Amino acid sequence: MNKYCFGVDIGGTTVKIGLFTTDGTIVDKWEVKTNKEDGGNKILPEVCASLEEKMQEKGIAKDEIEGIGIGVPGPVDDDGVVLTCVNLGWGTFNVAEEVSKLTGIANVKAGNDANVAALGEMWLGGGKGHGEVLMITLGTGVGGGVIHNGKIITGTKGAAGEIGHMTVNYEEEDSCNCGRKGCLEQYASATGVVKVAKRILAKSDEVSAIRDKDNLSAKMIFDAAKEGDKLATECVEQLGWYLGAACANIATVVEPDVYVIGGGVSKAGVILLDVIQRHYEKYAFHAHKDKEFKLAELGNDAGIVGAAKLVINE
Amino acid sequence: MNKYCFGVDIGGTTVKIGLFTTDGTIVDKWEVKTNKEDGGNKILPEVCASLEEKMQEKGIAKDEIEGIGIGVPGPVDDDGVVLTCVNLGWGTFNVAEEVSKLTGIANVKAGNDANVAALGEMWLGGGKGHGEVLMITLGTGVGGGVIHNGKIITGTKGAAGEIGHMTVNYEEEDSCNCGRKGCLEQYASATGVVKVAKRILAKSDEVSAIRDKDNLSAKMIFDAAKEGDKLATECVEQLGWYLGAACANIATVVEPDVYVIGGGVSKAGVILLDVIQRHYEKYAFHAHKDKEFKLAELGNDAGIVGAAKLVINE
Repeated sequence: MNKYCFGVDIGGTTVKIGLFTTDGTIVDKWEVKTNKEDGGNKILPEVCASLEEKMQEKGIAKDEIEGIGIGVPGPVDDDGVVLTCVNLGWGTFNVAEEVSKLTGIANVKAGNDANVAALGEMWLGGGKGHGEVLMITLGTGVGGGVIHNGKIITGTKGAAGEIGHMTVNYEEEDSCNCGRKGCLEQYASATGVVKVAKRILAKSDEVSAIRDKDNLSAKMIFDAAKEGDKLATECVEQLGWYLGAACANIATVVEPDVYVIGGGVSKAGVILLDVIQRHYEKYAFHAHKDKEFKLAELGNDAGIVGAAKLVINE
Repeated sequence: MNKYCFGVDIGGTTVKIGLFTTDGTIVDKWEVKTNKEDGGNKILPEVCASLEEKMQEKGIAKDEIEGIGIGVPGPVDDDGVVLTCVNLGWGTFNVAEEVSKLTGIANVKAGNDANVAALGEMWLGGGKGHGEVLMITLGTGVGGGVIHNGKIITGTKGAAGEIGHMTVNYEEEDSCNCGRKGCLEQYASATGVVKVAKRILAKSDEVSAIRDKDNLSAKMIFDAAKEGDKLATECVEQLGWYLGAACANIATVVEPDVYVIGGGVSKAGVILLDVIQRHYEKYAFHAHKDKEFKLAELGNDAGIVGAAKLVINE
């Protein structure tokens, strides 16, 4: 009984779904299209239909399902209420209750997708074995998730872990996507590091492997830095400074045991961990020194793994 | 049965003790001297003797005591282990276990004093009715406590909530007491605001009520600002900027619902709340705006109230 659970990760274009045994083994995973017609009203019915279909396919009875966890690309409070989700066309409603109604399964929980991914990495990824984890996702933007005692800190209105919008530069003149100025996201996201590189290149006339590239990317910058390119190294140092200094300040609030770095930019690997940790140790309060910095391990599965973990109590 | 509990707040010179009913009513409070002889080994036996004495005086049997909560001026982990406490001469040992042995009362919990005071303010003070609270104590230093779901976030090694050592100025050349540079404590503590004032006075030759005072204090600065003194107002603005900006960054991590400001500097009152909140709203991410800023209400009792709360589950 109660051997299985579902982890659902709703994104703007696809919904990733995983069927898990309650010890965290993936039995099956698949995707359905995110149907945004009719103000996003079709998304949950279609997801639930897909879950029912999978149960039939696998011969799993409803009472063998421990629960359904759901990650949503917007703020979600502890009761499972999503507080508007622009990407999907959603207003404010209780996602968990809705899915419970549609499936007849009582144990349904929902969380913000970045927070849920952090939970996944805590459970089976880079943060495995730790209860106090800070996850930072360096993608198009900078996302975050704070895990305390093995559970997500959601904040009062589901907006904890928004560390991409921590102000790290009060002198910044360009605006962040959020409209404010000097957010961590402006320097540490995939697009941010490219902007930083363009500034560094403009201030110098040194030869560099990353100069005059139309499609300059975070990957190109890290690759050049690994080859010893001076200006590329300066870009990586600046990224490391912002992230290391931000993590040292985060430590004064929640003192995590491990910092897990994920997202596309983290494909740069150990060079990224090293530069962040070096700057972290420089700024950390003495009681916060010597923490672990690790790469995320679950990639795109972090969302479905963390969603499953929402409904599993060990 | 189990109608009472003790809250103990161990300080460097006195130990404050409260006898409470489990609904939070203070039955009695008193102090004993902190006896630091013999490496602080006499402190806990003397405190426990004082508890036994009070029970006899009041005719309270041991099995009427729900538990004993203890605040300690140093880092304490979730198991009640204090990790060196320089002020008291203590090394690393389990305070909770020790008090349990000495009294024969099983339910003993210990926490860091600033965190425990935050818990007290959450329970019966400025944060009453809220589960997500950030407490900032502006005294000789700047202390903090983060309350999540009605409980203290202690951090991996008992050093969460050290927000006085959040770096807020990377250009600072003077050192903080901790040896690092640019800590919030350097600008927002009672001594910090006086240093800020001296810098502001030195840069200007305007007449000011706070100029040429041998014993310039935070109180004098706030009093002058309330009278409209321009340079004093500038000092208060700078204090508000640092605290408001720090709170906006803390919100990106844990999104508290209410910020409770205590300590000697908070006697300045509403002028302090207003200036912090004004700067907070300027820097807060949109999802974090419109939070409450309140003054602490329990004064010196916050420690014993919070300590009592450590052992009461409602």
